[in-house]
Amino acid sequence: VGPEALSLWKSKSTFTSFGVFFLQMGWGDLGAFGEPSKETPNLDQMASEGMLFLDFYTANPLCSPSRAALLTGRLPVRNGFYTTNAHARNAYTPQDIVGGISDSELLLPELLKKAGYVNKIIGKWHLGHRPQFHPLKHGFDEWFGSPNCHFGPFDNRALPNIPVYRDWEMIGRYYEDFKIDLKTGEANLTQIYLQEALDFISKQQASQQPFFLYWAIDATHAPVYASKHFLGTSQRGLYGDAVREIDDSIGKILKHLQKLGISENTFVFFTSDNGAALISAPRQGGSNGRFLCGKQTTFEGGMREPAIAWWPGHIPAGGVSHQLGNVMDLFTTSLSLAGLQPPGDRQIDGIDLLPAILQGKLIDRPIFYYRGNEMMAVRVGLYKAHYWTWSNSWEEYSKGIDFCPGQNVSGVTTHTQEEHTTLPLLFHLGRDPGEKYPLSFASDEYQRTMERISVVVQQHKATMVPGEPQLNVCDKAVMNWSPPGCEKLGKCLKPPKSDPKKCFWPH
Amino acid sequence: VGPEALSLWKSKSTFTSFGVFFLQMGWGDLGAFGEPSKETPNLDQMASEGMLFLDFYTANPLCSPSRAALLTGRLPVRNGFYTTNAHARNAYTPQDIVGGISDSELLLPELLKKAGYVNKIIGKWHLGHRPQFHPLKHGFDEWFGSPNCHFGPFDNRALPNIPVYRDWEMIGRYYEDFKIDLKTGEANLTQIYLQEALDFISKQQASQQPFFLYWAIDATHAPVYASKHFLGTSQRGLYGDAVREIDDSIGKILKHLQKLGISENTFVFFTSDNGAALISAPRQGGSNGRFLCGKQTTFEGGMREPAIAWWPGHIPAGGVSHQLGNVMDLFTTSLSLAGLQPPGDRQIDGIDLLPAILQGKLIDRPIFYYRGNEMMAVRVGLYKAHYWTWSNSWEEYSKGIDFCPGQNVSGVTTHTQEEHTTLPLLFHLGRDPGEKYPLSFASDEYQRTMERISVVVQQHKATMVPGEPQLNVCDKAVMNWSPPGCEKLGKCLKPPKSDPKKCFWPH
Repeated sequence: VGPEALSLWKSKSTFTSFGVFFLQMGWGDLGAFGEPSKETPNLDQMASEGMLFLDFYTANPLCSPSRAALLTGRLPVRNGFYTTNAHARNAYTPQDIVGGISDSELLLPELLKKAGYVNKIIGKWHLGHRPQFHPLKHGFDEWFGSPNCHFGPFDNRALPNIPVYRDWEMIGRYYEDFKIDLKTGEANLTQIYLQEALDFISKQQASQQPFFLYWAIDATHAPVYASKHFLGTSQRGLYGDAVREIDDSIGKILKHLQKLGISENTFVFFTSDNGAALISAPRQGGSNGRFLCGKQTTFEGGMREPAIAWWPGHIPAGGVSHQLGNVMDLFTTSLSLAGLQPPGDRQIDGIDLLPAILQGKLIDRPIFYYRGNEMMAVRVGLYKAHYWTWSNSWEEYSKGIDFCPGQNVSGVTTHTQEEHTTLPLLFHLGRDPGEKYPLSFASDEYQRTMERISVVVQQHKATMVPGEPQLNVCDKAVMNWSPPGCEKLGKCLKPPKSDPKKCFWPH
Repeated sequence: VGPEALSLWKSKSTFTSFGVFFLQMGWGDLGAFGEPSKETPNLDQMASEGMLFLDFYTANPLCSPSRAALLTGRLPVRNGFYTTNAHARNAYTPQDIVGGISDSELLLPELLKKAGYVNKIIGKWHLGHRPQFHPLKHGFDEWFGSPNCHFGPFDNRALPNIPVYRDWEMIGRYYEDFKIDLKTGEANLTQIYLQEALDFISKQQASQQPFFLYWAIDATHAPVYASKHFLGTSQRGLYGDAVREIDDSIGKILKHLQKLGISENTFVFFTSDNGAALISAPRQGGSNGRFLCGKQTTFEGGMREPAIAWWPGHIPAGGVSHQLGNVMDLFTTSLSLAGLQPPGDRQIDGIDLLPAILQGKLIDRPIFYYRGNEMMAVRVGLYKAHYWTWSNSWEEYSKGIDFCPGQNVSGVTTHTQEEHTTLPLLFHLGRDPGEKYPLSFASDEYQRTMERISVVVQQHKATMVPGEPQLNVCDKAVMNWSPPGCEKLGKCLKPPKSDPKKCFWPH
C-alpha cells in the first residue's frame, strides 16, 4: 500500500467502523498458530484474508488491567488498574473491589462518540461494577453483558450471583436467569452474544452510522461453557468446544459484515487479554503453544497473544507481521483510522499500527511486562530482559497452584520473587522463544544488548507517573447486591455493612 | 475425490513419480505448525497447495531405524534396526557399526525398479556403510551423499572422516573435500544437494521415465550448517538459517516440477525422521512445538512429525488430515500409486494412505512407539498409553544430557526406566497434546479405553516376530577407512585390527 492508498482511506476515514474481538485465548489455541487439532477454520481464514501478528502482546497477564489498557491506550500502572498492597501482585476487579475506571481516564468509546460513532460492548466489562464505573458512563452507548467474571453459582448471602446488564439495568443474574451447567459446561451465552453482535451491526448499517463493537465474551474463561450444538464436538474437550463456538461466531460476524457490504469499511481485530490459564488445563484451560507458563506470569505464555487484523480491500490477504504490538495500540490505531488525535495531556503507551498493517513497516518500540506495580521484564527487538522473575509462591505451589504445569526452567520459573535488576536475565526470543536459555552474562551479546535495553528502561522509569491504584481496597458491601433494575425483577439483595479492607492478592 | 477420479489416476498410475523429503525437523519448526518466526514460506505454501498431516509419526525416535522403516515399510524391530544389548535402547549406524540393512529386506526402490522406476538417493543413507549395505545394492540407481552422519572433523587415525559418495565410489570426505566450518556453521552442501535433485528431475523428465527421488539431507542435524547466502538471515540463529535454506530448496524443487510440467504426475511428501534434537538447542536444535521432549524419546516431541503431501491436481489444496500416519506408510502408499502390491511374504506395518489423502477417509490404525527392543507406548485414536517411560538415565542427566529441557512431568519424564505394563499411563492427546495429565486409573474413561487398547497391544505382541538385530556389534575395523574409490583419490586409510565388541548404547 503506497501513500495514495493511504490518503484514500484517510479521506474515507469517517466511514471506518471498528470491531474488536477481545477474549481469553492462548497463542497456541488457533490452528493458524499451530494448535494440533486445528479446529479454528474461521479464525484461520480471518488470518489468511488479513494479517497475522506473531509478536503481539497484552498489557498485563490478567483480565481487568488488560481491558483497561486496551480502552485507555495506557499501561495499567498509569490508568490505575494495579495494586500497591504488596510487591508485584496481579489484581483485578472481583465483586468486592471498591475501585474501577477513573473518570479522569479517557476511553476509546468516549473519544469515538464525539466523532459520531455508536459504541457497544458485548460481554465482560471488568473495569469496575459500581455505578460510577458503568460502561455507559464511559462512552459506550449500549451494553449487553456482565460487569465481572461469570463465576458462581453463589449463594446470594455471602456472594450474590453476577448480574447481566442490558444497557443501564440488570436483566437477570448468572446461574439464576442465565444458566451455566457447571457439570456439563452447557450454556447458550455465546449464541446470545453472537445475536447481539449481528443485530447491532445490522442496525448500524441500516442507519449508516460508524460504530465500535467491542465483543468481549467469556466462554473460554473458567467456568468454561459452550452451547449444546457445540458440546462434545472438539477433540480438545470442553475448552475446545468453547473455542469452536467462538470461532464459529466470529466467522458469522465477519460474513455478516460482508453480506451487508460494509466489510471494507470495518477494521476488525482479534486478540486476547492474557495467555491461556494453564492452571485450569486441561478441561478448562487452553494452550500457549511452546511459550513458557501462562496467565498470571510475565513469561511469554502469560502475555504473548494470538492477534489478527482483518480489513478486506485494505490489508493485504495472508500478511504476516513481526511488529511488536500491544492491545493498547488498538486505542491509538482506531483513533488514527477515525481521523482523531490521541489525547495530548497524558502519556499514551499505544502506538498507531497502520504503518505496520498497511505498509509493512516495522516500528521500533519496547514491550513492558508488568505484574502489578513492578516492571518485571522488557522486550526490545528480539531480546527480552527479566528484571524480576516469579511464577507463584511456594505456599501456593504446594497447594497445587501451578502457572507453569510441566515446565520448569531453573532460575527462571522461580517460586520466590527473584530480583535481577543489577544483572537481568536476557533471552533471545528468536532463537529461544521458550525462555529456556539465558544468555551468558559474560558474552559480548549480553553486554551490547543490555546497554541498549538499559537506556529504554531508564527512560521508561524516569518518566513514569503511576496512577492512583484502584485495586487496593475491597469491601463486601459493594458487591452486586442491588444493581440498577433489580427492583423490577425482584432481585435486590441486602448488602452487609461496609467494612473496607486491603484486598488480598496472593500472586 | 470420488471413485471416478480414483480410477482415473489408477489408469495413469505408471506415470506417477515420487519425491520424498526426509530430514530431521521438529513438528514446531514450520510456520504452518506454529513456529513463531514463521520463516518457512515454501513449506507453508506446499501445505496450502497440498495436505497437512497433523497426526503423523516416525517409526522410531532416532535416524537410522526411521530411515530403514520408511524404505522397508516395517517397524525397526522387524527389519533389524534395533539392539538387544540392553533394554529399550536407541541405536543407530555410527561408523563402527558392523550391521546394516539385510539382503532379505525388500526396499521401496527395489520394488519400484522392477516397475521401471529410476531411483536416486541424495543425502544420508544411514542403513549401514559396509559394501553389502551400499544403496545401489538395495534398489537405488544413483546416490549422492554419505553413508553416515556428517560428524567430524575426525583425525583419520582413531576415526576417519565420513566419505561422500557419488554412486558406487567415494568422491571425497567431509571436512577435507566437503567443508563444514564448525565455528560459523558455513557449508554449501544443501546447495549441492539441491542441484543434484534439480538435475536428476530434469534428466528423468527428458527421458520420460518415472522416478523415485529420496532427498534425505542433513543440514538441520548437528553439526548444523547453512550456505553463506543463508547464514545470519534467520531470527532463529544458525538452526533457523539451515531451515530457511532447506525451505528455499524445497520451494525450488517443487517449482522445477511445475516448470517441467510434471507436478501432476509427481507425488511429493515432506516429513522428518525424528523429533527435533532438543539436546542441541538452541543453536543446533529445533522445536517440537508444545509437544513433550524430543529426539531419543517416545513422547510426542520425539516421534510426532511435520508432514505434508503435495500432488497438484489430485490432492485438494489446503487439505488437513487427522489420519494417524507413519513414515512406513510412504512405502505402501508409493507401491499403491505405482500399481504394485506390497510383498505378501512378510509383515508390512505401513498402510496405504491414498483413501485418507484423496477421499478424506480416516483409517483406524494404531501407532507403536518403540525404543530399541521395547514397545514403550501405543496410540489408538486420540489416546496414548505408555507401557514404559524413560527420558534418560540420572547418570547422563547429571552430565547435562537432557532430552526434555525446561520440561518435567512428574512420573512421566522419568530418569529411570519405569514399567507401567500392568497399569499404563493413559493420555488423551486431543485435550492434552503435551502429555501432562494422565487420566485417573479409576475413571470409566480409563477402564473403557484400556480395554480397547489392550486388545490392540496383545494382537501386536502375539504376532510380533523380531528380526535379527543389526545394531549390536561394533568394530573400529569396519569404519570408513578405505571406501571404494579411495585409491583414485589417495584417500585410503589403514584400518586397525578387527576387534568386534558389543556396541554401547547409553539411552
